[in-house]
Amino acid sequence: MSKYLPRLAFCVGRPGLMALRHDSTDCAKIGHTTVSMSRSLRKTSPSAYKILRNTVAKLEQMIGMGHRVRLNEKELAANAVIMAVKKEEIKRGLLDPSKFSPGQHIFQTLNHIRKSPIFNILKKMPKGGVLHAHDTALCSTEFLIELTYRENLWICTTDKGCKAIAFRFALEKPTMKAIEACSWEPMEDFRQRHGEENVRRYFQQRFSMYPLSNFTSNNQAWSHFMGIFILLDGLLCYAPVWGDYYYNALKEFYEDGVQYLELRSLLPPLYCIGGEILDIRDTVAIYEAEMERFKASHPDFIGSKLIYAPLRGVEPKVVEEYVKTAADLNKEFPDFMIGFDLVGQEELGRPLIEFVEPLLKMPEHINFYFHAGETNWFGSPIDENLIDAILLGTKRIGHGYAITKHTLSMQLCRLLDIAIEVCPVSNQVLQLGVDYRNHPAALMIAANVPIVISSDDPSFWRVAPLSHDFYFAFLGIAPMQADLRFLKCLALNSIRYSALKGEEKDEAFSKWQKLWDKWIDNVISNK
Amino acid sequence: MSKYLPRLAFCVGRPGLMALRHDSTDCAKIGHTTVSMSRSLRKTSPSAYKILRNTVAKLEQMIGMGHRVRLNEKELAANAVIMAVKKEEIKRGLLDPSKFSPGQHIFQTLNHIRKSPIFNILKKMPKGGVLHAHDTALCSTEFLIELTYRENLWICTTDKGCKAIAFRFALEKPTMKAIEACSWEPMEDFRQRHGEENVRRYFQQRFSMYPLSNFTSNNQAWSHFMGIFILLDGLLCYAPVWGDYYYNALKEFYEDGVQYLELRSLLPPLYCIGGEILDIRDTVAIYEAEMERFKASHPDFIGSKLIYAPLRGVEPKVVEEYVKTAADLNKEFPDFMIGFDLVGQEELGRPLIEFVEPLLKMPEHINFYFHAGETNWFGSPIDENLIDAILLGTKRIGHGYAITKHTLSMQLCRLLDIAIEVCPVSNQVLQLGVDYRNHPAALMIAANVPIVISSDDPSFWRVAPLSHDFYFAFLGIAPMQADLRFLKCLALNSIRYSALKGEEKDEAFSKWQKLWDKWIDNVISNK
Repeated sequence: MSKYLPRLAFCVGRPGLMALRHDSTDCAKIGHTTVSMSRSLRKTSPSAYKILRNTVAKLEQMIGMGHRVRLNEKELAANAVIMAVKKEEIKRGLLDPSKFSPGQHIFQTLNHIRKSPIFNILKKMPKGGVLHAHDTALCSTEFLIELTYRENLWICTTDKGCKAIAFRFALEKPTMKAIEACSWEPMEDFRQRHGEENVRRYFQQRFSMYPLSNFTSNNQAWSHFMGIFILLDGLLCYAPVWGDYYYNALKEFYEDGVQYLELRSLLPPLYCIGGEILDIRDTVAIYEAEMERFKASHPDFIGSKLIYAPLRGVEPKVVEEYVKTAADLNKEFPDFMIGFDLVGQEELGRPLIEFVEPLLKMPEHINFYFHAGETNWFGSPIDENLIDAILLGTKRIGHGYAITKHTLSMQLCRLLDIAIEVCPVSNQVLQLGVDYRNHPAALMIAANVPIVISSDDPSFWRVAPLSHDFYFAFLGIAPMQADLRFLKCLALNSIRYSALKGEEKDEAFSKWQKLWDKWIDNVISNK
Repeated sequence: MSKYLPRLAFCVGRPGLMALRHDSTDCAKIGHTTVSMSRSLRKTSPSAYKILRNTVAKLEQMIGMGHRVRLNEKELAANAVIMAVKKEEIKRGLLDPSKFSPGQHIFQTLNHIRKSPIFNILKKMPKGGVLHAHDTALCSTEFLIELTYRENLWICTTDKGCKAIAFRFALEKPTMKAIEACSWEPMEDFRQRHGEENVRRYFQQRFSMYPLSNFTSNNQAWSHFMGIFILLDGLLCYAPVWGDYYYNALKEFYEDGVQYLELRSLLPPLYCIGGEILDIRDTVAIYEAEMERFKASHPDFIGSKLIYAPLRGVEPKVVEEYVKTAADLNKEFPDFMIGFDLVGQEELGRPLIEFVEPLLKMPEHINFYFHAGETNWFGSPIDENLIDAILLGTKRIGHGYAITKHTLSMQLCRLLDIAIEVCPVSNQVLQLGVDYRNHPAALMIAANVPIVISSDDPSFWRVAPLSHDFYFAFLGIAPMQADLRFLKCLALNSIRYSALKGEEKDEAFSKWQKLWDKWIDNVISNK
């Protein structure tokens, strides 16, 4: 026996196996017993080998997500259409990977993708719900620009009136201080001074992360990203606009095949034209009223629920306040304000562990939906947010980008049925990864850890409310063989892992099923 | 019971858990049984929570690689020094990720890394063996340039004598055709025409992948990469140079803390000054003789073994020839030529499955060391090379970049003790990924799938023979907590998973241990 074996055993912890392989002298001594343990198939016939090999390959696929979904006759026909189109797009990619969109940055491929046949099929697909999206990052840039035409809007600028710092609705020149020193002028004046088209182009850039696809770090990307939220603050936190923005978001999402929205909101206090500040309850009430109004005119729409998600970069005692607010709001809006989360760049905020004391006081029936592991710093306190999220009983994990590096946490998600909210485009734009084919969700799909696909902040990347994220998940992240079963599973998951309960969940499935069946018919007839 | 449950069950396959969560109406009916099943810890005290949480975090770490290695007193002291330096470098990275080398492309950080204290510690560390490196991509650019000063060297150029196409040693002007039409001239004339310094700079670029850090796809990177091999062909396949190149490689590797090299070679037939072509046996004989010569003058050196690794882009009947050649060579060099592999871009070659028939005929005692899964095309036939490599009984897997997407194959590697040869820099330069923090080896480390770190083709990336790959593995890929135990495990693995056997393996460990103990003393005294 090699004298090094005992020490080596610590490396792998399986001395049995090691002994078998380590020392050929020893093996010789015990005659042919090791040969019979050999894992070589070299004495096998090629055809027998291939049977075994195909079984193993099949088995590996069967472990993955969606492989147990059954398709009916019509779905099978639609699947044939979809897979033919998908194979074409992959074939072109294999021939010239530089033309394969999931290998590029979205800012370079956005227009190109709009022409993709597979994207256009996905666009019309009833995709279920969006379970991870943020309050003021939902609507298209075009809608935001429209908002700047509203009456009584002022803009505050620096750089000789060239750089927009803040917006505010007011009857007279605002006196409030913006984030940096700037001068207020009526929006019309600003537009006239620069010319309408220039202002449009300027806002197209300022209201989004474009054209910066080459930040040098995710910290830089985040700082730009937070800047957009701050700039939009005065434009959107005006009470009348707040409701319209949300209503329009529901409309845009619905038109993109989304029937349900679970929204994370900071729930900022809104202001009125005279400068009065409303209560946080009003922010929620406006949401609920607009949602009901939208549902009334769109009977196929399932609805929307709210996750209170204030900023994480605070002292623990502030989280104590958050918890009280959440409990109060939930009392007032028990079916609408149903969950809690903390937002802002995880790496610059505080880890969940520091907030355990107040968080444990959250009433049992208000669910957690924590952001966790939106980082590539393996082993950092932030990375360990994943463990706290799970142990604090989170129902889903926002992003969970780092979870594949956590064997045990991955297992726990599978066993405890915690879904990961995967936001492919967001992860790329905020600089966690480049090539969608390397996105960790591929591993979640392979290991059948439950996932839902979301868009996080589609407004800022100028993508469709959900279709682009589905496109990258289907074409870039999932295995080539992923088909309609995978897509159906994603849609079903988005309802299954939502905060919908009992009868409302049944109703949700039935509303989705209705549109799904119609879509399947369309795919078949348009082939 | 929700009427949608049976269908949904297919998505996840755990109806028990689903029933618990799906339908709150049902849960209400069975009273508090579901509450007692709750996984919320909200009734726990914060201090009890923290105990549980730290246990789980610790458990997760314990699963990972290296956590069972024990360190002696001196090693513990050295570890303290190393971790202090590592923490400094990570701290700077957290403050400004754009300055964190493992987040950047090596071509931008090469000079910067040479100044890193952690790099300089790793450079001197006895790292064991390199188990994945290719015949003509081992030596520094400087050595290659030196070779171009040898007598009787001709160069073939196009573009008005500006672009080098081929080299050849000959007494008279070569008559052979190069890969494209070009004109031969003596190397001295070429150097004189352009000036020595210009030629040096030109070769520095032509003999490496620099400065092209922004290829648009891995196909393009590969085509450039293969071009270097072709250019070097006539320079290195000259019998006297072949031996000197290998001897110098052993020297450079040894000086970088590498005591053993398991080389993959195409085993090209070499040529002599008069144009005679030698037998492939001579190629091996030269290797073995040079290795013995090197060992004789470097008693700390463990040795070198050879894996015959011809090109994969061939017809199956050619592989039949390969197998015969491997068997013949192994008969002649039983302790030196010990394994077989196939090389060249996996995505453009043929998948292993097409070669099963000839491969099954390989004599049982010649091991396979297959390249597999060096791709990000999930679910492609190439991706499935991983399954064939394992079922064909491979002892290690070259790259295995895609294996984390294959749950079952990962498990098999762990159970069958198959090590993954991870080559971080190679994967970045050949465009599989950018940020080392997203390298799939992080997951192998987390799941304790055995790995070794290798450099593949250090010559072409102008990095140290092994230290840069160790640097990225330690600082970028592994968790922040990874320490001397991790490093020691990597070094031990490189011997443990080598083709060394019985007594020679014992001797290898003992040679490594000697240098290791000396290095530990140095780390402590130089702190």
